Amino acid sequence: MNYLTGRVRLARNITSYPFPAKMTREQAEEVIDKVWDAVSSSSLKDSVSIIKNTEENRLKLTSLSEKHLISPDFLRGNLPRAVILSSDNTISIMINEEDHIRIQVFSDTNTLSAAYETADRIDTLLSEKLPIAYHETFGFLTACPTNAGTGMRASYMLHLPALTMSNSINSVLSWASKLGLAVRGIYGEGSKAKGAFYQLSNQIALGATEKDIIARLDAAAKELTDKETLVQNALYENNTAKLTDKCMRAYGILTNAYTLSSEEAFSLISDVALGINLGIITGIEHKNLTDALFNTLPASLSLANNNAESAERDILRAEYMRTNLEKH
Amino acid sequence: MNYLTGRVRLARNITSYPFPAKMTREQAEEVIDKVWDAVSSSSLKDSVSIIKNTEENRLKLTSLSEKHLISPDFLRGNLPRAVILSSDNTISIMINEEDHIRIQVFSDTNTLSAAYETADRIDTLLSEKLPIAYHETFGFLTACPTNAGTGMRASYMLHLPALTMSNSINSVLSWASKLGLAVRGIYGEGSKAKGAFYQLSNQIALGATEKDIIARLDAAAKELTDKETLVQNALYENNTAKLTDKCMRAYGILTNAYTLSSEEAFSLISDVALGINLGIITGIEHKNLTDALFNTLPASLSLANNNAESAERDILRAEYMRTNLEKH
Repeated sequence: MNYLTGRVRLARNITSYPFPAKMTREQAEEVIDKVWDAVSSSSLKDSVSIIKNTEENRLKLTSLSEKHLISPDFLRGNLPRAVILSSDNTISIMINEEDHIRIQVFSDTNTLSAAYETADRIDTLLSEKLPIAYHETFGFLTACPTNAGTGMRASYMLHLPALTMSNSINSVLSWASKLGLAVRGIYGEGSKAKGAFYQLSNQIALGATEKDIIARLDAAAKELTDKETLVQNALYENNTAKLTDKCMRAYGILTNAYTLSSEEAFSLISDVALGINLGIITGIEHKNLTDALFNTLPASLSLANNNAESAERDILRAEYMRTNLEKH
Repeated sequence: MNYLTGRVRLARNITSYPFPAKMTREQAEEVIDKVWDAVSSSSLKDSVSIIKNTEENRLKLTSLSEKHLISPDFLRGNLPRAVILSSDNTISIMINEEDHIRIQVFSDTNTLSAAYETADRIDTLLSEKLPIAYHETFGFLTACPTNAGTGMRASYMLHLPALTMSNSINSVLSWASKLGLAVRGIYGEGSKAKGAFYQLSNQIALGATEKDIIARLDAAAKELTDKETLVQNALYENNTAKLTDKCMRAYGILTNAYTLSSEEAFSLISDVALGINLGIITGIEHKNLTDALFNTLPASLSLANNNAESAERDILRAEYMRTNLEKH
């Protein structure tokens, strides 16, 4: 499980409306209606639905946010916003977040080219129906200048346990920065406790084509995950018994505990995933672990269980692990 | 698993030989021969064998010692010694430990009367063939005056996790002392890390009949284990989630770890046993746990695995747990 998910995001804005930071509620509602009209009259119409940021949708949206399907910023403030989501959760179009439109396409492979093609197709489809702000020199105009140009951000969520254990993350950070890329902890900066999950993304949207940016990110992700694999093997070779014990105990705790915090679950899943990579743990797939990771996030558990509170969620999370992570 | 094992021990000496501390090697050999002749010409002959303290038997004897079938003192010094052991390990007669003869009978019930009857029968059988030192006023004569009189020590190994967790062991100590009893940690004094296993024994062998001493010890053991059960239930009621989690995690680690020290195994088995008592853990019996406890003691593992050293033993111990403690 070196790759978790990849994402391509295109930022677009409609001419004649101010950016969301300066919009009135009425203008925001209009933009939502226009985008939804465009999407729901397109070939996407049967596979998507719209969720507005009403009070009653709050928990559902928090759950989408912790799954990275929408941004934390989407949840802030009172401006009317909406997200158009495909039924398989691979497409998410945020309306009135920082920009009027943010097309997001997710992928679970080790290349983002297919995801980019899908995003590009949606972009084309919207451009045919909406006047998109574009400048000959600057490219697509965006609320924040760092997104201008292609308006594209592409990223991978990567699992880098060996680089974390061997304290090599700082050197990874400076390597990435030289390539115009950024590496961040997926929930807060580089937190070990959160199980060695990181986001690798491009920092600059300008001065290169979308395909070039994606090719560069794909190559960097490959280089990074290859390095992770090398370090995993080296760590294993030098600490076989210790690492074997660590991974096996993690599995034992994960699948037997009565209560598990989200933080501990991340950390244990990270160790078990490493165990699968190294052949220490068999009879269980990475897919089971990523499902467990995303299905037991706090808001997801609350949503599925009558707004369960923290202590109850920890019990439900542990129950999920005991039920779904048995070896077969 | 409140009761692990019980033991009755009778100390006897043969007239006309000095106590072992003052014996020559020749005298020691003679005593071994006389006792073995007496036993091997009795009804016990088909079920017993003799093990002398030769260098080649050292590991085997260490293994008997850690199982409490012989005493640690038996292993010290160069005097010829021997132990006569029944094939089911319920009878162990030490020759030339502190006294010439120490008849030990083990039991896994919550009364020592049957064990005492067996010990008494062996004592009678030996008395018929050997001149046993007995004094009208002092009773049986022993190397250490605290054993004189009946020459009897009786004891239970008890598992008292809740009294340990609730820091009530000190009050148990003073309660026992008032009754002429002693409570000790089974491997070193009151050590929590060793899994809350204790030995309860009579301190005085004089001034009461054997049956009285045993009745008193049986009653005290019952009182103590009843109190343990009460405290277990109270602890559970007040800390249900926490205690459930602790016991379930202990089972998870115990049955998944790649390497386990003896100390950690004791502690985990203690928690799992508590979990069985409280109905938290099902599908596994106390018997499995006590077997695991005694079969994975260091010398027992070394004996069964080509003199395995510490690190290797820890791996073998964990393997034993993974193989033998699955829920059914």
